This record gives sequence, C-alpha cells and structure tokens, in this order.
Amino acid sequence: MKRHMKAHVFVTLKKTVLDAQGKTVCQALRGMGHNSIVDVRQGKYFEIDIASGASVEAVRAELNQIAQDILANPVIEDCRLEIEE
Amino acid sequence: MKRHMKAHVFVTLKKTVLDAQGKTVCQALRGMGHNSIVDVRQGKYFEIDIASGASVEAVRAELNQIAQDILANPVIEDCRLEIEE
Repeated sequence: MKRHMKAHVFVTLKKTVLDAQGKTVCQALRGMGHNSIVDVRQGKYFEIDIASGASVEAVRAELNQIAQDILANPVIEDCRLEIEE
Repeated sequence: MKRHMKAHVFVTLKKTVLDAQGKTVCQALRGMGHNSIVDVRQGKYFEIDIASGASVEAVRAELNQIAQDILANPVIEDCRLEIEE
C-alpha cells in the first residue's frame, strides 16, 4: 500500500557565512521599536509530499540526499530534515 | 534577569495560491528520477534570537504581530510561529 508522508526541509546559511538578508530584517525590526530582537537569520523552507511504499528509513535516506545535493549548497548552507509519518 | 529565547517563523504561500517555485523544484526532482515526490511547496524561514525579560506569552504575542504584519503578506501567505524557551 502506498503511504503518504510529509517532509520538511530547512536550509539556512552556515553560522560563519554573513546573512545580509537576515541582518537587514533584524535592523528593520529594531528600527521599528522591537528592541528585544537580537539576531535574525533567514533561510529557505521546503514542504515535500511523498507517496512511498518504502520504509521511513529509505525515504529519509533519499530525502537527505536530495536536501544535501539539490536543495542546499553544502559549501555555504546547512540543511535539516524532518519527516512526519 | 534577561533570558534568551529562539523563535522560528515559517512563511508559506496559502494552499490556494500557485507556488511556481515549488512546482519547478518538484518537476526537477521528478525529472531526476525521484518519482515518489508528489508535491513541493517552498517558503521562507526565519530564526529569531530574542533577549527578553518578558514572559513567553508576551514574546509570543509580539512575534505573532511581527510575523503577520512584517515577515508575511497575509493576503497570499500563511505563517507559523514556534518558540524555543
């Protein structure tokens, strides 16, 4: 039986890479009076629907590959994968 | 005492709005042989550091306001907020 699964992939710039977009958002928020905001980092977010007869482990392995090879640039970005069953 | 909190804001296009970027990623992945991928939706992700003496509830209220008014366009986008204490 085909099961449907949902995966969430979060791609963010590595901590050591300057996130100009996040810095700009942070400064804008502080300029609007939200002084408790210390730092903002912006990233990408993918919601992926999967129809799979395979095990969660197999799906996780495939998606890890996809996330690292295709969705993120491993030179400057980190990615994190969550799977809802 | 000032506590540090981390918040995660996820901004995605509403289900009724065409997500051309997500569709393109989905087609690309399927074209590369990942046939179990049914749908991809792409969104934005913000990691926010907060230095706050206020309660979690107050921070949540402030961030909800920020997320809905500034980070997302409520006409076409949904946003979701998670706070790590």
